[in-house]
Amino acid sequence: MASYQPVTKEIVEQLEKIAPGRVYFGDDVNPDYGRDEMPIYGTRVPEASVDALTTGEIAAVMKLCYENNIPVTTRGAGTGLVGGCVPVMGGVVIATTKMNKILGYDLDNYTVTVQPGVLLQQLAEDALSHECLYPPDPGEKLATLGGNVSTNASGMRGVKYGATRDYVKAMTVVLPTGEITHFGSSVSKTSSGYNLLHLMIGSEGTLGIITELTLKLIPAPKAAVSLVVPFEDLASCIAMVPKLRHSGLNPQAIEFFEKAILVTSETYLKKQVFPRVVDGVDVGAYLLITFDGESEEALNPIIERAAELLLDQGALDVLVADSAPKRKEAWAARSSFLEGIEEQCKLLDECDVVVPVTQIPEYVVYADTLAKNYDFQLQYFGHAGDGNLHIYACSNDLEKDVFVQQVDDFMSKLYAKTMELGGQISGEHGIGRGKIKYLAEAVGPTNIALMQGIKKVFDPKLLLNPGKVFTLPEA
Amino acid sequence: MASYQPVTKEIVEQLEKIAPGRVYFGDDVNPDYGRDEMPIYGTRVPEASVDALTTGEIAAVMKLCYENNIPVTTRGAGTGLVGGCVPVMGGVVIATTKMNKILGYDLDNYTVTVQPGVLLQQLAEDALSHECLYPPDPGEKLATLGGNVSTNASGMRGVKYGATRDYVKAMTVVLPTGEITHFGSSVSKTSSGYNLLHLMIGSEGTLGIITELTLKLIPAPKAAVSLVVPFEDLASCIAMVPKLRHSGLNPQAIEFFEKAILVTSETYLKKQVFPRVVDGVDVGAYLLITFDGESEEALNPIIERAAELLLDQGALDVLVADSAPKRKEAWAARSSFLEGIEEQCKLLDECDVVVPVTQIPEYVVYADTLAKNYDFQLQYFGHAGDGNLHIYACSNDLEKDVFVQQVDDFMSKLYAKTMELGGQISGEHGIGRGKIKYLAEAVGPTNIALMQGIKKVFDPKLLLNPGKVFTLPEA
Repeated sequence: MASYQPVTKEIVEQLEKIAPGRVYFGDDVNPDYGRDEMPIYGTRVPEASVDALTTGEIAAVMKLCYENNIPVTTRGAGTGLVGGCVPVMGGVVIATTKMNKILGYDLDNYTVTVQPGVLLQQLAEDALSHECLYPPDPGEKLATLGGNVSTNASGMRGVKYGATRDYVKAMTVVLPTGEITHFGSSVSKTSSGYNLLHLMIGSEGTLGIITELTLKLIPAPKAAVSLVVPFEDLASCIAMVPKLRHSGLNPQAIEFFEKAILVTSETYLKKQVFPRVVDGVDVGAYLLITFDGESEEALNPIIERAAELLLDQGALDVLVADSAPKRKEAWAARSSFLEGIEEQCKLLDECDVVVPVTQIPEYVVYADTLAKNYDFQLQYFGHAGDGNLHIYACSNDLEKDVFVQQVDDFMSKLYAKTMELGGQISGEHGIGRGKIKYLAEAVGPTNIALMQGIKKVFDPKLLLNPGKVFTLPEA
Repeated sequence: MASYQPVTKEIVEQLEKIAPGRVYFGDDVNPDYGRDEMPIYGTRVPEASVDALTTGEIAAVMKLCYENNIPVTTRGAGTGLVGGCVPVMGGVVIATTKMNKILGYDLDNYTVTVQPGVLLQQLAEDALSHECLYPPDPGEKLATLGGNVSTNASGMRGVKYGATRDYVKAMTVVLPTGEITHFGSSVSKTSSGYNLLHLMIGSEGTLGIITELTLKLIPAPKAAVSLVVPFEDLASCIAMVPKLRHSGLNPQAIEFFEKAILVTSETYLKKQVFPRVVDGVDVGAYLLITFDGESEEALNPIIERAAELLLDQGALDVLVADSAPKRKEAWAARSSFLEGIEEQCKLLDECDVVVPVTQIPEYVVYADTLAKNYDFQLQYFGHAGDGNLHIYACSNDLEKDVFVQQVDDFMSKLYAKTMELGGQISGEHGIGRGKIKYLAEAVGPTNIALMQGIKKVFDPKLLLNPGKVFTLPEA
């Protein structure tokens, strides 16, 4: 039974001894530490916060809080979309953003060791300077790697390279007692007891605090070409995806989006890159496809075959972005979808379902039809190549409680459809605070009870990021 | 506290109602059900056995045993190497070998659903007839897929395609209470609560009984070429491996072995395929490398570059096995290493460590030097491409207790070196009965306590495959 204690001045004094000059209390706590990018799931500023610098500091803070029954919530860059880093029970927030050092490369074994506060973009650029690629590529480049691993956020390149999970080799973890331990190692495979490493990945900061990560890299592909492919409507656009996957052409990314969200994004960026009318036909939806390989020469026949296939199957056009600036321009619009939506919508909620790729057309038609029963607007895009869809409900007109009620009704039906089609609640955003109910409905009480049991093994006092993923009777 | 009860005649009668004609008791139990391929870790024939046919039967047997505190051990083909399927506490063995149906393919999403008793070889051949490849490829082709998943046995192709873990999408599981549940789904990625699927993979039948598996396939490569590459000594052979991995040539498999084990295997097969002397130089060690790709034409330049690199770096020769019969012949010798050793050795023990690829040379030299202190013989081979080494201690002369004592001393030192080099105790065989002590030393009490805690969440009565992976005070 968790009986949380408040953060007293005595506790703050002890925190200050652990992390001198980096402890904040009461009104001095950064209000941003009380929210992520989806405040609709609730916000709460913690009683105190610590900007940690080392594993030792985090262990000491955790031990102190363990001894005093104070809840602890770890925070990266706060770019999450399910309220996962919000300290809903108060207590202490440990921010890892100052633990932002790339500790070293082992280029012979293609690994890199980083602190958890290193940003995705920072590692991506640094790895490229070593001719390596860190394949996971979530849309939000300013997320921390600790956050990415905690939600298994994987992004665009999953279709070719797999999920973030596939690139985590080892981690240092501070357990809720304050003990420091290590999971995994820099080897290719293992069968050495229960896989605690994979259990930590995607556990959303509820089992332990990741304080160091060893990640797998691959040799950077030497060439990449993107194709911008407009279609008359979403149906023909989406129907293309399984065909592309079966073509043997092995694209690195296949993203889809409707015109509405593109216009939102290009308005935000004040720049128009994608064609909106082709030969007099209004474009309804787009694919943005990237191929990578050893050389431009090696990619040319692949691009040719892809273009042939696409045009043959109903694409209005195939625009080739074969230079770095052109690729950057095309992907900038894609990367700004969320910022664009956030700028233009007062009320926002979203889902992050993943369905088998062949089920995407049926799913999208269902979502579209269903949304007509409500007063909010739907915008969506997604990682078509791996079946992961980001569907946004937006409103500028509704009262918040009406919006929340309508979205809840809509999402419940949408998640039921997800499960019916063999999908999962979240592809990469996680459950956090916002999806607890839907996860419980989706996986059922037996699996939730197993998760709750595992939680108590790691965290018997239920101190770490409480109120997330599932409800616990004791919390 | 587990207080196991014996299997009474009343229990047998109830089992018989669940699985009529497929229940064995006392002297009627197949004695093979009391052992795997490594009897040195102990054998024990169960009190009763059930050849199950369905998930429902397994759930009913498990429920009966749960209510009566009877231990249950699941068994596939019994090809394990760590005593993992031996019912050391007696009770009931459930054999899955009659659950050997391939239930269906979803070729659009590249998955196949199988019963756990389907053999690796059976799926491999069947998938090929659908132009698909199931990439995991352990040396033992007659293992069941349920067994492969339970130990994350991955085999030869890990260097290009990853581990068995990477090909498990979903499973049906009977929990120790008899409840039936499902983990995972046919999607590309997920962030939907703790990953119970990955926890089950490699848990060696101690958390639940796998009764159905959905596995990922890939389009079958249309061409493959193997290279047989003799070297003068092991050092030059092994030094080649990191260079090959860095060449960008992307081999499917890189196996290494010394001449001694090859001779053992070729003697067993009564056929000599590999050259033992090249241009008057005695061969000391070999690499067996396979490349696969879209066509023979596409492979030709890769083979040429590989041959150039190999010869440049000290290979005595490069023999190309570019036809299916030639490839089969070369790999037959490799696949018979264990059978060859088993035929020629009265006493046998082995280890299955995995180290970072660049550490293989140092590791092998250490093992060789260390072995000189003992009276057994060492033979080894391994998946050089992913750092997984199979090291066999063999003797025909020693008394069993002397052998066991010497090997224990040797292995303790070898495992300490493994951990020092950043490796892991087992790459794919698991911990089972034989490696409990070494796992505990390697991962430490904190991680073992987490594993024990997880075990109790799934299996509060400690009924499922007791006495494996770690010791439990209560068992």
